[in-house]
Amino acid sequence: MFKATIDADILKTAIETLSVLVDEARFRISPEGIVVRAVDPANVAMVSFDLSSSAFDEFNADDSEIGMDLSKINDIFSVAGRDEKVVMELDEMSQKMSLHLGGLSYTLALLDPSTIRAEPRIPQLELPAEVVLNGKDLQRAVKAAEKISDHMLLGIDEDVFYMEAEGDTDRVRLDMTRDSLIDLKSGEARSLFSLDYLSDIVKPASRSNEVTVELGKDFPVKIGFTIANGAGKIGYLLAPRIESD
Amino acid sequence: MFKATIDADILKTAIETLSVLVDEARFRISPEGIVVRAVDPANVAMVSFDLSSSAFDEFNADDSEIGMDLSKINDIFSVAGRDEKVVMELDEMSQKMSLHLGGLSYTLALLDPSTIRAEPRIPQLELPAEVVLNGKDLQRAVKAAEKISDHMLLGIDEDVFYMEAEGDTDRVRLDMTRDSLIDLKSGEARSLFSLDYLSDIVKPASRSNEVTVELGKDFPVKIGFTIANGAGKIGYLLAPRIESD
Amino acid sequence: MFKATIDADILKTAIETLSVLVDEARFRISPEGIVVRAVDPANVAMVSFDLSSSAFDEFNADDSEIGMDLSKINDIFSVAGRDEKVVMELDEMSQKMSLHLGGLSYTLALLDPSTIRAEPRIPQLELPAEVVLNGKDLQRAVKAAEKISDHMLLGIDEDVFYMEAEGDTDRVRLDMTRDSLIDLKSGEARSLFSLDYLSDIVKPASRSNEVTVELGKDFPVKIGFTIANGAGKIGYLLAPRIESD
Repeated sequence: MFKATIDADILKTAIETLSVLVDEARFRISPEGIVVRAVDPANVAMVSFDLSSSAFDEFNADDSEIGMDLSKINDIFSVAGRDEKVVMELDEMSQKMSLHLGGLSYTLALLDPSTIRAEPRIPQLELPAEVVLNGKDLQRAVKAAEKISDHMLLGIDEDVFYMEAEGDTDRVRLDMTRDSLIDLKSGEARSLFSLDYLSDIVKPASRSNEVTVELGKDFPVKIGFTIANGAGKIGYLLAPRIESD
Repeated sequence: MFKATIDADILKTAIETLSVLVDEARFRISPEGIVVRAVDPANVAMVSFDLSSSAFDEFNADDSEIGMDLSKINDIFSVAGRDEKVVMELDEMSQKMSLHLGGLSYTLALLDPSTIRAEPRIPQLELPAEVVLNGKDLQRAVKAAEKISDHMLLGIDEDVFYMEAEGDTDRVRLDMTRDSLIDLKSGEARSLFSLDYLSDIVKPASRSNEVTVELGKDFPVKIGFTIANGAGKIGYLLAPRIESD
Repeated sequence: MFKATIDADILKTAIETLSVLVDEARFRISPEGIVVRAVDPANVAMVSFDLSSSAFDEFNADDSEIGMDLSKINDIFSVAGRDEKVVMELDEMSQKMSLHLGGLSYTLALLDPSTIRAEPRIPQLELPAEVVLNGKDLQRAVKAAEKISDHMLLGIDEDVFYMEAEGDTDRVRLDMTRDSLIDLKSGEARSLFSLDYLSDIVKPASRSNEVTVELGKDFPVKIGFTIANGAGKIGYLLAPRIESD
């Protein structure tokens, strides 16, 4: 059994955190909420998604696992108005999910979870350095870097968090000192990442005032933030690229 | 003789009701106003257009018939500002129409009406059921349906007007009861229509607060509304598709 | 030595006046300001660009000449916020320009000026007629003309400045009399111009309330306006096309 009501806006933002990496996802539903762990087709990035039942106006669920096509859900939201509520209801017999919003009723066939790539094991990394910053600053540096390169360095140099990209002849760099960051835990940190992935990840992250970035030396980066007014938690893990110089 | 002045906005909206179905049209002009009857190239939809002389600030006309390329008129409006007046004047000698707006003068060659498809005879159908609703609701259901199918059912089930589309695995449905409709005359009604056409027709209809939809069982639908603050009347007639199941 | 600070908006607008005609430009820097003279690859249009040191908040420069890729600078501005300052600094040793804005630092490789087309000699033309008008009016006529033709006549007929375009069957004309112009110096003037070029030139010109248009009979047109609140001066010279009729 699964029946839940939530703000269309909150659900839309939540789904976007997944759809930037994968087209289909396995949703693990329990009385506590909804959990997704997914990895992108190229094995470069993982997302861990936890949406607590408290993000919902109403939430009644047994334990179950369902597969959904995220692009179909995004299609539905493209006709949703602001401030609308979505009522979701699972029909286990027919393996269909119904979504009601603004008078419209959608009935979506679920995907067999076993046809969707299995949940990845998210490695428990202890990373030496951490910065907390506004998601808009992160997005700005990524957009600037995309103009000149395919990849971007994230690193910490004493009290400065830097993001740097180098093209054939040009270079862009954003230095953020303690006073323009929300928090900084310094440590040895300098890793190179693909801008394709960073650009996807910062899209949902840019809506958050507080994004945590954990870093090491040639290690994956962890990018985390909350959604649904704190009732949801998103964490990305992005593998580094080898610096060629 | 034909010389008339009208709000650019009103004329633009009026022309759009035709250009969603046809590229060229025969305009029948008389002292009472302008009348167009047109059918789309595939013979699926007809439009009946009546714009009374009272929609104009100034209207002087003898009886005449002219052919015009609607895309050219739309081009002109794409540079028109808000709240501008258009002055139209027919030069019968040269078979040109001049349009003056915001200081600009356009001189458009008319088309020979005999080269444009003849006016269709619009069938006088008595349809058993009728609903009156806000054009925005109609448009919303059509947009939602387009995401999953090429065609859409319109029907009445006792006191409920429904719009429904079915894809390979998914379904979307909008049920509207008496209290969310402006009016409902119940009757046997359930017909399937092409979303290509519905989508074109609801574009101009969505600007009207009161759209009348007349329906039958496997019969054409009539979709009517007023333009020009009531001084114009638009009626579409759209042929049904055969339901295959 | 070159180090200067300027509003991002002002610099962006200034660069656009060049980038509508050329991709790369030679900037001649002196203590008085920055000068560019450039001609488009097809030799149809020239631009003369003068930005006084007074357009800058801070301006320290020796005489020098540098080459820059304008599209790279435009890329940088695409991530700039409103009301930001840009600090530019030239590193003569490495032949790089650094731009700092909103925390971001860009380092751009300069182009060897000798690889960029030499500065054209701008002919000193005395043109018999001149009109001064709002850039928006000029842009509007050009946009209307583009709908029906590839070229456009600019001319003066006694006290009327006209812009006219003729398609195969249609015609558009904007007549502006003394009272809708800021100034008019009548004279024999009627020349035909390519709309491709006019359309590019009116983009930056449309932001100016006062654009000066100097004309003759089958002669180039000079289109001039100020930027940077009067501290910069832009002049285009556009060659005429031969009228075929």
